[in-house]
Amino acid sequence: MNIIEPTLIVSKVQVLNNINKIKSKAERNGIRFRPHFKTHQSIEVGKWLKKLGVKHITVSSVRMAECFAKAGWEDITIAFPVNILEIIRINNLAKSIQLNLLVESVETIQFLDEELQHDVDVWINIDTGYNRDGVAWDNHKDITRLAFQINKTNKMKLVGILTHAGHSYKARSKKEILSVHEDTTNKMVEVQRKLQQDGFDGIQISVGGTPTASVAEDFSMVDEIRPGNFVFYDLKQVQIGSCSEEEIAIRFACPVIAKYEERNEILIDGGAIHFSKDHLLDAQGRIIYGYLSQPFNKEFSRIRDAHVSSISQEHGTIEVSNNDFFQEIRVGDIVYIMPVHACLATNLMGKLITLTGKEISVTCR
Amino acid sequence: MNIIEPTLIVSKVQVLNNINKIKSKAERNGIRFRPHFKTHQSIEVGKWLKKLGVKHITVSSVRMAECFAKAGWEDITIAFPVNILEIIRINNLAKSIQLNLLVESVETIQFLDEELQHDVDVWINIDTGYNRDGVAWDNHKDITRLAFQINKTNKMKLVGILTHAGHSYKARSKKEILSVHEDTTNKMVEVQRKLQQDGFDGIQISVGGTPTASVAEDFSMVDEIRPGNFVFYDLKQVQIGSCSEEEIAIRFACPVIAKYEERNEILIDGGAIHFSKDHLLDAQGRIIYGYLSQPFNKEFSRIRDAHVSSISQEHGTIEVSNNDFFQEIRVGDIVYIMPVHACLATNLMGKLITLTGKEISVTCR
Repeated sequence: MNIIEPTLIVSKVQVLNNINKIKSKAERNGIRFRPHFKTHQSIEVGKWLKKLGVKHITVSSVRMAECFAKAGWEDITIAFPVNILEIIRINNLAKSIQLNLLVESVETIQFLDEELQHDVDVWINIDTGYNRDGVAWDNHKDITRLAFQINKTNKMKLVGILTHAGHSYKARSKKEILSVHEDTTNKMVEVQRKLQQDGFDGIQISVGGTPTASVAEDFSMVDEIRPGNFVFYDLKQVQIGSCSEEEIAIRFACPVIAKYEERNEILIDGGAIHFSKDHLLDAQGRIIYGYLSQPFNKEFSRIRDAHVSSISQEHGTIEVSNNDFFQEIRVGDIVYIMPVHACLATNLMGKLITLTGKEISVTCR
Repeated sequence: MNIIEPTLIVSKVQVLNNINKIKSKAERNGIRFRPHFKTHQSIEVGKWLKKLGVKHITVSSVRMAECFAKAGWEDITIAFPVNILEIIRINNLAKSIQLNLLVESVETIQFLDEELQHDVDVWINIDTGYNRDGVAWDNHKDITRLAFQINKTNKMKLVGILTHAGHSYKARSKKEILSVHEDTTNKMVEVQRKLQQDGFDGIQISVGGTPTASVAEDFSMVDEIRPGNFVFYDLKQVQIGSCSEEEIAIRFACPVIAKYEERNEILIDGGAIHFSKDHLLDAQGRIIYGYLSQPFNKEFSRIRDAHVSSISQEHGTIEVSNNDFFQEIRVGDIVYIMPVHACLATNLMGKLITLTGKEISVTCR
């Protein structure tokens, strides 16, 4: 592989391992595996999942649903509350595939009742503590009102309740992730129970999020999981406790432009338009935009004490505390970097290169 | 304009005003205006600049240089230190246009001396306090060594010294910007003077950065300015003191998805894949991803106390303190948002729409 500019490399072997791990977990629990495609947004990576038996998928926009529907996916959940301005596109999709929508407002359901031309399955969006979107899980009055409203429409069928436990991203250990998982499951089961009391039978539970899907084992109380990030993983997921560094399936390869002996820093070609500005804070409170690692073909080991410490649009600065490593590096070398946030990095790059040099297009961004 | 998804709107009138302001300043000072195209990365916006008489441009990558060269630009500075791995592309460019390169390493100059096939002009990259890239301004020994090394090559002509006063982004007032401008100019003049003592005559000075170009008036000691962000401006530039809110030439238009009465928050379609994760801290220490404003066609006024308070990949949350405004907003409305960082937002969006509905492609990203 002849790398001359910032390049996002993917290990297909590691991706398949990551998929198989979660997929077998879903099978052991006898539940539906509906991976979120927003991380890779790629028809090719989608094919890898299809080959492993995946039939149901999640996306986060109508645009992404259109793209994957065109690529042959026939059962798609848009896990973003319906944007009523996109009704024409929603109707077009609902005509040709099994479309599953997410709702949370009286106004939206009313609008859909008037405008929908084809049958759709509908999930009520539940907030189990992330406080970003959805109806609060303990707001039984509003949830039941939405359920009754949906049941009175012609084209919408209420199939379940859906949540994204985004607050699991605040976890810093497997134990904390498990605690969020248990709490989320209990809340969703409670919502399901109350709806049953009101006469709504067979309400399914769908939960999202890579941390809980990666760490928890017991999903017997839910019907569906929708993790996305797990296909690639990243340093954020390592920090949360979802995975090990070895499970991260992508690396940035970036050219070394200059060395600054006086401050043990390296300038690389690679910045915010490649990595995104997402970062994490390490134990010492330093801002980290990425850690250096070996390329995939060498034995895995993070190069300790070398991290991307600041970025601007195209420039990246690597701070190297390991002096031997600093002395080894030459202008024109390639350094390998584990990304902080795989989803944003993949979206920015627009393509990935496999270890055998095959280009994987981020087709559906 | 029928807006149904996150859309980046540009006021061409405001862009032309912004360009004319800096361009006349360069003319008053009798210096070269070489705007940086990394902000818009657009052939169409480039044409607006060309029509106003701009002939010399700056870009931040070989890729961008290739794209604008193909669009007819014949004098391009790549204001990113040479990446020696791109030598084939550099030679191709140098064959067809006046190419100006930035260097700072002995290794790079040696490599270019062996590999360059066509004449290029060369600038030495000087660090005047940003500490990101370049040779420290007071490292006279290294700067002179580079100058001698360049002069001994066949294809490279040393034309000047170049700096980007990126530390001007830490300013919070016009006064602080002016102080950075004065300091930077003095340092560059000192480097020029020392080089002259060593026999290097006619060394030009090139300075970059929107803050200093926007605020300072006296550029009599430099030969060239290379601002980029000023075509659009953004909230960061307002905070720095470079411009007023009224001068920001772009707005995000985003659909309202849901309202949360219990916490005076609005969910919009618009997140990190649109705005980027760049943010600023307001006077109260709150993280701001954007401020709400009126659309361009209404009289300008920021909607006070309404800001994008958190974002994930596609979701944006707007915190509204103004209760009247909160009550007015309906699901399916469009809200207008001033972006924090115009360059990253434009790069992510890939296109802009003018007020007359014309689509402007971000062609060269």
